[in-house]
Amino acid sequence: MHSAEETEEPGGYQPWSEVTPDAARRLLVAAVDAFAERGYHATTTRDIASRAGMSPAALYIHYRTKEELLHRISRIGHDKALEILSTAADGPGGAAERLAAAVRSFVRWHAAHHTTARVVQYELEALGPEHRAEIVALRRESDAAVRRILAEGVEAGDFDVPDVPGTTLAVLSLCIDVARWFNTAGRRSPEEVGELYADLVLRMVGARQK
Amino acid sequence: MHSAEETEEPGGYQPWSEVTPDAARRLLVAAVDAFAERGYHATTTRDIASRAGMSPAALYIHYRTKEELLHRISRIGHDKALEILSTAADGPGGAAERLAAAVRSFVRWHAAHHTTARVVQYELEALGPEHRAEIVALRRESDAAVRRILAEGVEAGDFDVPDVPGTTLAVLSLCIDVARWFNTAGRRSPEEVGELYADLVLRMVGARQK
Repeated sequence: MHSAEETEEPGGYQPWSEVTPDAARRLLVAAVDAFAERGYHATTTRDIASRAGMSPAALYIHYRTKEELLHRISRIGHDKALEILSTAADGPGGAAERLAAAVRSFVRWHAAHHTTARVVQYELEALGPEHRAEIVALRRESDAAVRRILAEGVEAGDFDVPDVPGTTLAVLSLCIDVARWFNTAGRRSPEEVGELYADLVLRMVGARQK
Repeated sequence: MHSAEETEEPGGYQPWSEVTPDAARRLLVAAVDAFAERGYHATTTRDIASRAGMSPAALYIHYRTKEELLHRISRIGHDKALEILSTAADGPGGAAERLAAAVRSFVRWHAAHHTTARVVQYELEALGPEHRAEIVALRRESDAAVRRILAEGVEAGDFDVPDVPGTTLAVLSLCIDVARWFNTAGRRSPEEVGELYADLVLRMVGARQK
C-alpha cells in the first residue's frame, strides 16, 4: 500500500512541500504510510528508512527519533486544519456562507488526505507530553474558529443553536471522521462529500433559508 | 491504563457476558486494552496473556491466533451495533422517534464503550479476508437499518432528505466518531451526548416540527 497523497491538488497546494530537503520529505511520507498501515508502535525507524529507500543512519540526519517524525506530521496536519478553518471564519459573507466554506474545505482535506489525517487523529497519544500540549493548543484554536462562526450566526439571528460548544464539537467530528470512511475507490469525490456535508451542517445549525 | 468497560451498565447489559468461560472473557478484555493502547500490530499474544495474568499456553486454549481475538471483539461490537440500530428501526412510533432512539442508543454505546469501539473501527484492515467479509456484511445491515428509517420518514412526509444514502452515512459517521473524542473525564455524559446528537440528527433530516 503506497499512499497517493504526495500528488499535487487542484488548489495548487503541494502536500509536504513545506518539508525540505527532499530526503526529509521522503522520510515523512514514508512515515505516514508506515504509521497508517501498521500503527505508530509497530513501526521502527528502520522500517521508515527502508520504505524511503534510505539507511537508518541517513534517517537520523533529519530526525532524531520516531516521535519527532510523528510530531512533524501532526504539526503540519494541525497547522493546515487551523489555516483552513481560520481562513473560512475570517472570510467574506454571512455566518452561513462562512460555515459552509469551512465545512467544504475541511471535508475536502480529510477526504483527499485521509491517510495522513488518520495518523494525525489516531496517534495523538503517542506524542510526548510537550508535543501533545502544543497540538492540543492548536486543536483548541481550530475549535474556537468554528465556535466563533456559530456564535456570530446566532448573534445575527441567522442560526438557531441551543448548544454552541456541543454543536461545534459535532460539526468538527463529522468532518474529521470523513478520514476514517473515505475511500478513493468509492462513489463520491472529496468535492461531493464537501457539498453534502456543508448542506447537512447548515441544517444542524438551523440556518435561515435565504 | 486499564479500561473501565467491564462494568455493568444501567441498562443491565454486561459487556462481554456472551464470552465464556471466564478465562476467555478476561483474555478478550485484555486484548481490547492492549490493541487500544499499542495497536493490533504492536501487540503480541504474550502481551495479552500477561495482561490477563495468564501464560501464553493458557491463551492458546481459547484462541488460536491474535487475529481470532480481534475477530471476536469485532464481531461482538458489530453484532451489538446492528442490534441497537435494528431495535430502533423496528421500534414503535414514527420515523422521527425511531431515528432519535437509534441515535441516542448508538451514541451512548460509542461513548460508554469508546475503547472497544476504537479497536472495532480502526483495526478492520487487520482482519483476515473471510472475517473482514463477514464484518463488512454486518456493517451493510447496520447501514440498511438507518437508511430504512430515513426512507420511511421521507415517504411519510416527515423528513426532507435529498440524499438518503449520503445522509445515512453522515448520521452513522457522526455517532461512530464519538468513540474517538469521548472522554470519561469530560463534561458530558454518554446520555447528554446522545440527547444532543438526536436533536442534531433530526435537524439534518429536516424533521417536521410537531
